[in-house]
Amino acid sequence: MRPTRALARANALTPTVRAALASAAATADAGPSQATVNGWVRSVRAHKNVAFAEVDDGSGDSVQAVLKGRTAEGITLGSSVRLSGTLSPSRGRGQALELQVSDARVLGPSDPDAYPIQKKALPAPLLREHAHMRFRTTQTAGVMRVRDALARDWHDWFEDHEFVHVHTPILTSSDCEGAGEVFTLSQSLPGPEGSPAPFFPRPTNLAVSGQLHLEAPTHALGRTYTLSPAFRAEPSMTSRHLAEFYMLEAEVAFVDTLDGLLDVAEAAFRGVLSRLLAYDSRRATRARADLAKIAQTLAAEQGEGESGGEGEAAGPLDHLLAAATTPFARITYTDAVALLADEHAVVPFEHAPTWGDGLSSEHEKWLAGTHFNGPVFVTDYPAALKPFYMLPSGPEAAAAAHGPTVACFDLLFPGIGEMAGGSMREHNLDALRARMAASGLSEHEYDWYLDLRRFGSVPHGGWGMGWERWVCWVTGVGNVRDVVAFPRWAGSCRF
Amino acid sequence: MRPTRALARANALTPTVRAALASAAATADAGPSQATVNGWVRSVRAHKNVAFAEVDDGSGDSVQAVLKGRTAEGITLGSSVRLSGTLSPSRGRGQALELQVSDARVLGPSDPDAYPIQKKALPAPLLREHAHMRFRTTQTAGVMRVRDALARDWHDWFEDHEFVHVHTPILTSSDCEGAGEVFTLSQSLPGPEGSPAPFFPRPTNLAVSGQLHLEAPTHALGRTYTLSPAFRAEPSMTSRHLAEFYMLEAEVAFVDTLDGLLDVAEAAFRGVLSRLLAYDSRRATRARADLAKIAQTLAAEQGEGESGGEGEAAGPLDHLLAAATTPFARITYTDAVALLADEHAVVPFEHAPTWGDGLSSEHEKWLAGTHFNGPVFVTDYPAALKPFYMLPSGPEAAAAAHGPTVACFDLLFPGIGEMAGGSMREHNLDALRARMAASGLSEHEYDWYLDLRRFGSVPHGGWGMGWERWVCWVTGVGNVRDVVAFPRWAGSCRF
Repeated sequence: MRPTRALARANALTPTVRAALASAAATADAGPSQATVNGWVRSVRAHKNVAFAEVDDGSGDSVQAVLKGRTAEGITLGSSVRLSGTLSPSRGRGQALELQVSDARVLGPSDPDAYPIQKKALPAPLLREHAHMRFRTTQTAGVMRVRDALARDWHDWFEDHEFVHVHTPILTSSDCEGAGEVFTLSQSLPGPEGSPAPFFPRPTNLAVSGQLHLEAPTHALGRTYTLSPAFRAEPSMTSRHLAEFYMLEAEVAFVDTLDGLLDVAEAAFRGVLSRLLAYDSRRATRARADLAKIAQTLAAEQGEGESGGEGEAAGPLDHLLAAATTPFARITYTDAVALLADEHAVVPFEHAPTWGDGLSSEHEKWLAGTHFNGPVFVTDYPAALKPFYMLPSGPEAAAAAHGPTVACFDLLFPGIGEMAGGSMREHNLDALRARMAASGLSEHEYDWYLDLRRFGSVPHGGWGMGWERWVCWVTGVGNVRDVVAFPRWAGSCRF
Repeated sequence: MRPTRALARANALTPTVRAALASAAATADAGPSQATVNGWVRSVRAHKNVAFAEVDDGSGDSVQAVLKGRTAEGITLGSSVRLSGTLSPSRGRGQALELQVSDARVLGPSDPDAYPIQKKALPAPLLREHAHMRFRTTQTAGVMRVRDALARDWHDWFEDHEFVHVHTPILTSSDCEGAGEVFTLSQSLPGPEGSPAPFFPRPTNLAVSGQLHLEAPTHALGRTYTLSPAFRAEPSMTSRHLAEFYMLEAEVAFVDTLDGLLDVAEAAFRGVLSRLLAYDSRRATRARADLAKIAQTLAAEQGEGESGGEGEAAGPLDHLLAAATTPFARITYTDAVALLADEHAVVPFEHAPTWGDGLSSEHEKWLAGTHFNGPVFVTDYPAALKPFYMLPSGPEAAAAAHGPTVACFDLLFPGIGEMAGGSMREHNLDALRARMAASGLSEHEYDWYLDLRRFGSVPHGGWGMGWERWVCWVTGVGNVRDVVAFPRWAGSCRF
């Protein structure tokens, strides 16, 4: 038997490129420092007696390695290396320090002709075919780090405001939207005498939302949220839809009015953006550096020429700053339709805005983009457009001339359209039962949901947001397929 | 159109019970303070002229309300209330302040005879039948808050050590374990001419692990992890298995040896425990208060009599403190089998320990509980017991006399058995292909996984942990079904 070990090494992890550069910069006055870095070769320029390689380990910073003589052997695009040498002031553009390599080891070779990730920007559809490799691009690596940082900011906001994160179930017999676009499971087990028996006694599907389940702990914990996977078996092939995606959903008890709920949601969105813009936050500083790099790759992809100009780095934060510092507009659906009708009379939309119809994507983008030029809550939609659990509108928003409305909102963002949607929930038992009956839903199936109204019901509301849309809006990436590690959509579940 | 609003109210959320009590305590020198609290009535004692109600809003603290005359009307067990009054020093046991109620409003009534959650401890199986309501018990509410706090501690540890959280996919065509116990999807879409077409071109199942997918971003970001749902369609009915559960999985590039990987894992586990024990952390202080309350309910459930003794509050932290401050033992599988065989010769196990067989639960519990009395890494299991992707053991652990072993570990915890498992991954392309062929796996299906070894392969390793087991071990709750919001197991997918 080996003896038990003394304390695990204080730092079992070797320093990242970022850490090595920071350490060398901090001790620069004492002269060049020795360092060993690991990473992947993102580009290589070979001259007669020297080669320059950009080595990236995913920590957010890369280092230029200067390879003389035989140290450059085998150092090709895409290979992985362990390099030791001296970190010294660089004469090159774009970095303060470079690694003068004294010892080089190729950990894993890479045939540069076969390597699918080239230094130049590749088209997004091609990269999706290599989703397992596109993490090695500046854009996808940056998006993954930003996606992570954004989630941490939301988690922190919720913790600071006493929300409890609850993992809502994926497997469920309840279907929040009442729609048919759900993935179903058909699982069986060997039953007695070898005949198959169902794994679950009732039809089971994958959650399209965690909301109904989240309402249960909300009736005990007061404020809850979840960042969980959700699934829609819809054949949408747009840039805004995935078959598998993440949803950020929050529920708040003891909020009495829709305006009160909007106040909470707006405080959350703007609070989270403020965190991303904070100048005393290491996380935010790193995320902003990634946002600037992502913006450069997007510009290159769109053929806006080479990056590097002074003005470009500030651009990627402008929309974040505007949304963080400007109150979100609020307008009822009825008033929004009137606004859209006025516009339609001058510059026609493809679809005429009509009370009782949903807002189309062009309407939403006109409202948030052209008219309000910022995030806008559209409230109090027709009840007929919305699911059974929404509370009727308060008197100030009643649209009796048209028909009943409900105390709900869609939060529209410029360029995106619907970013989030929420509502007050019907908390009166009899009213909810009536709505369920009118919607043709089985009371038996939702008996547990009705229990929340039978025992200690409270006024409450909540909202949900498609997580990938949020990442798209923050980063400027135009397609949700490019902000998720392994995207799944109708016809595509590779890897 | 309504005008856009000025800044959303600075605090759109009403104060929680916890915040109200903290605020009143901070200003106690200035005399009693006015407060309005919302919450659910957890118990009520009615006397002739006065009633006492414990009001809990899930924030972690409850308040005793003193209701005189008509203010007590309708205040029943399980009802939800909004109470206004004066927070004054209490003469009652167990709280510093009580609310002298001047105005009471019942938000949602509750028939105390029908209400399924009674003040006394209820059996866990009965509470599972009311999973939507058991959040209203001290134990489940506390477990939900602790589960949340534990996740935040892990997230913080990973962020501090430069790991990126990546959402691995749930829908997949790859099966990490090579086992058949997967949930499969059979989804179709209306195809051309009305005939159904499959939603995805290949058979698709729910992830049993995120590991293989996590290895891809690890080959670009360096250090990654995920806390994601995983699914096993196995009919296990034990206290340690669920059909749907969460897994915490981490991957680390540029770690060269199994001992180095153990160093990282041990640093993570002990670092996270240190956070939970930190005395300057608000999160940890709250979590420890919940752990003490959970321990009391567990003791009551087990019939250990009434709680309240001085000694009990310290107990729930003892196992955490021991694990945080004591190095984890490390032993090879081969040496562990020899140890077990020695013990078996004196006090026989049910299953004889035999080289080549897996360790049984009794073996694991003896090792971690009786012998090492703390967490122990058992390393270098026989290759035949482990999946294809594991690296062969290094020379120091080679067990040539018995057969080949792999550079893997199971981390055993007292009372739990297997808490986590991990390994070095085979990073040599040809060696991996040979293992796949020997395992009967299709190279075509795993071509993307092989690409990670074709281009810039690096030595790497990782581990995974069943999240519910971690929550069980920390809280002392004995069944994973009781630390998850809505548990799913074979035959049960209610709600």
